Amino acid sequence: MAVRYEHIHTCAQTGARYGILHTPSGSFETPIFMPVGTQATVKTLENDEIHEVSDGLILANTYHLWLEPGVDIIAAHGGVKGFSKWDGALLTDSGGFQVFSLSDIRKIKEDGVEFRHHKSGAKLFLSPEDAIHIQNTLGADIIMSFDECPPFNSDYDYMKQSVERTIRWAKRGKDAHRHPETQALFGIVQGGPHIDLRRHCAEELKAIDFPGYAIGGLSVGETKGEMYQVLDEVVPMLPDDKPRYLMGVGTPDDLIEGVSRGIDMFDCVYPTRMARHGTAVTSHGKVVIKNKTYADDMGPLDDRCDCKVCTTYTRSYLRHLFKSEEYLGLRLISYHNLYFLKNLMAEIRQAIQQDRLADFRAEFFERYDK
Amino acid sequence: MAVRYEHIHTCAQTGARYGILHTPSGSFETPIFMPVGTQATVKTLENDEIHEVSDGLILANTYHLWLEPGVDIIAAHGGVKGFSKWDGALLTDSGGFQVFSLSDIRKIKEDGVEFRHHKSGAKLFLSPEDAIHIQNTLGADIIMSFDECPPFNSDYDYMKQSVERTIRWAKRGKDAHRHPETQALFGIVQGGPHIDLRRHCAEELKAIDFPGYAIGGLSVGETKGEMYQVLDEVVPMLPDDKPRYLMGVGTPDDLIEGVSRGIDMFDCVYPTRMARHGTAVTSHGKVVIKNKTYADDMGPLDDRCDCKVCTTYTRSYLRHLFKSEEYLGLRLISYHNLYFLKNLMAEIRQAIQQDRLADFRAEFFERYDK
Repeated sequence: MAVRYEHIHTCAQTGARYGILHTPSGSFETPIFMPVGTQATVKTLENDEIHEVSDGLILANTYHLWLEPGVDIIAAHGGVKGFSKWDGALLTDSGGFQVFSLSDIRKIKEDGVEFRHHKSGAKLFLSPEDAIHIQNTLGADIIMSFDECPPFNSDYDYMKQSVERTIRWAKRGKDAHRHPETQALFGIVQGGPHIDLRRHCAEELKAIDFPGYAIGGLSVGETKGEMYQVLDEVVPMLPDDKPRYLMGVGTPDDLIEGVSRGIDMFDCVYPTRMARHGTAVTSHGKVVIKNKTYADDMGPLDDRCDCKVCTTYTRSYLRHLFKSEEYLGLRLISYHNLYFLKNLMAEIRQAIQQDRLADFRAEFFERYDK
Repeated sequence: MAVRYEHIHTCAQTGARYGILHTPSGSFETPIFMPVGTQATVKTLENDEIHEVSDGLILANTYHLWLEPGVDIIAAHGGVKGFSKWDGALLTDSGGFQVFSLSDIRKIKEDGVEFRHHKSGAKLFLSPEDAIHIQNTLGADIIMSFDECPPFNSDYDYMKQSVERTIRWAKRGKDAHRHPETQALFGIVQGGPHIDLRRHCAEELKAIDFPGYAIGGLSVGETKGEMYQVLDEVVPMLPDDKPRYLMGVGTPDDLIEGVSRGIDMFDCVYPTRMARHGTAVTSHGKVVIKNKTYADDMGPLDDRCDCKVCTTYTRSYLRHLFKSEEYLGLRLISYHNLYFLKNLMAEIRQAIQQDRLADFRAEFFERYDK
């Protein structure tokens, strides 16, 4: 087995779990947040910085790397890690989410998905087997099943058909997987808001038997309340001895709520995307650094943060960089945002071990303006 | 005196000089190349990296910082160094060059220059005294006289009038200078291609007496041959015991030719500007990294370079970053380009000390494709 989850402690206040995820590239305390390096780069940062602002496990997107630079070039480098020289642990998604979210024109068949390139319009095809074989070449420690991710409010009948297909694709993906000893293939539970479909999907995936399970189809436009409700129901369906991964989730409040419901792993473009728009995530809430109010603000971005950005630069300087459209601004805010989430997860893990995550949540939201 | 030039050796092959520039923020071997941090940031890089790719002396642009964020905000930080947290040495230009190159609408009077903001169109005015007082607040170790920089091929009569005014402005600037003990004010020799005007300007500036002299009005559209001819004539007009600074020059060939003619200091946006266009400067010449030929190139950017970019990444990965419009590409090429020039200057200094700069020049151009 490429990946093993070691459960250490359950928070008496919440049911949140503290544990260790053992992977071929190192062991990681959970719950963990994984920064996203879509195109084999966590935007603006070099590898030594990615180590500073992550726990050493990051994500890359199969869809984008399959299209550019293509699998052959990455294979020549020995995989994504050889390509980007990332020496930590890596997870790749299956490409399914991008096929369904980026391409307007697509035809879903039993065999796979026909779709158009989101920029060039070229005709493309991806099957569950293709998605796994591409990920086998990309070489991540954790890889994901090829699933369909329908809109949250798709009608029940469509969702039912889709879930059945996702289950069949998961089985086919597992059969096609070439490196189960070095790459852990996770199953993905779909089913939208329909708890019976979620349960059916979870049961079937458990029968196929994966070393880890993800919850997909959330954070796709539904309300936070709807998402938390699904988590309340679905997490208990997942086995205790396997890691649980909530895909595409990463705002501070969603991380705390997800952990409180038993999630171990998260990923999201949120911190780097916010940075691109000049928004810092701080212990007091969002700081839109371009705002005029920060022009002569001599304070740090976040007075509770000990990252190199907060201990070095003033808000005034950071605002100047954004106003002047200097790349360094983007880079410094990206760094801080990721560091903030890394630090938040460390605090969360400590609170779980001390059986006080509900207290921590209350303290956090006392300060944090959503 | 804020700055002192210590002459150590003159190359027997060329007349190039090796020396030490003593400033309030440290001593620097010359000839030296100074990276440009226009808006109080050397594009894409943090201060620790700027130290790695420079000799510790960089430039900031008075014009841009005067407009954004403005002198008051920088004063509140204790100057540009406090603002950007740069702990090395700093030089600011006077703003004159930008007034004449960026603003289309301007009126030159004896008192100063009336002009329009290059973006907003707002009416602005800058006098020689203003330019020095702004630089006094920006707080650089070396500051520059406010000069007019006319087009190289301006007619003789205009150039003559302009040079006379530049001399008067230089005197007024020196009189207005508030911190001669901690900031060295350099004079700037203008005169275009007219050697008699250059001589007159140099003589008058020497009579005013500055701790250093720059040659301005070059690298503004004239041919390289014309520039070298002016240098051949003008450098010998400058005192031996003061540093000689060729403004706005920074291609590898111009650096070597400038040093060979006795120049000690250079600055140029060339390395960072080339990086923004995806062009690396290497020991073999330019590498336009976006070109398809590099898609599967497993070699380093420059096989003779020992910088972290060349010892870590393949050309294939760097091309992928540029093709994907990832900021990291820009950042890595900027880093390499600056490192390349830093290393070139170190080799030049060694060649001068070994009385073999002409040999070095021949060896360099043997490899380097202009």
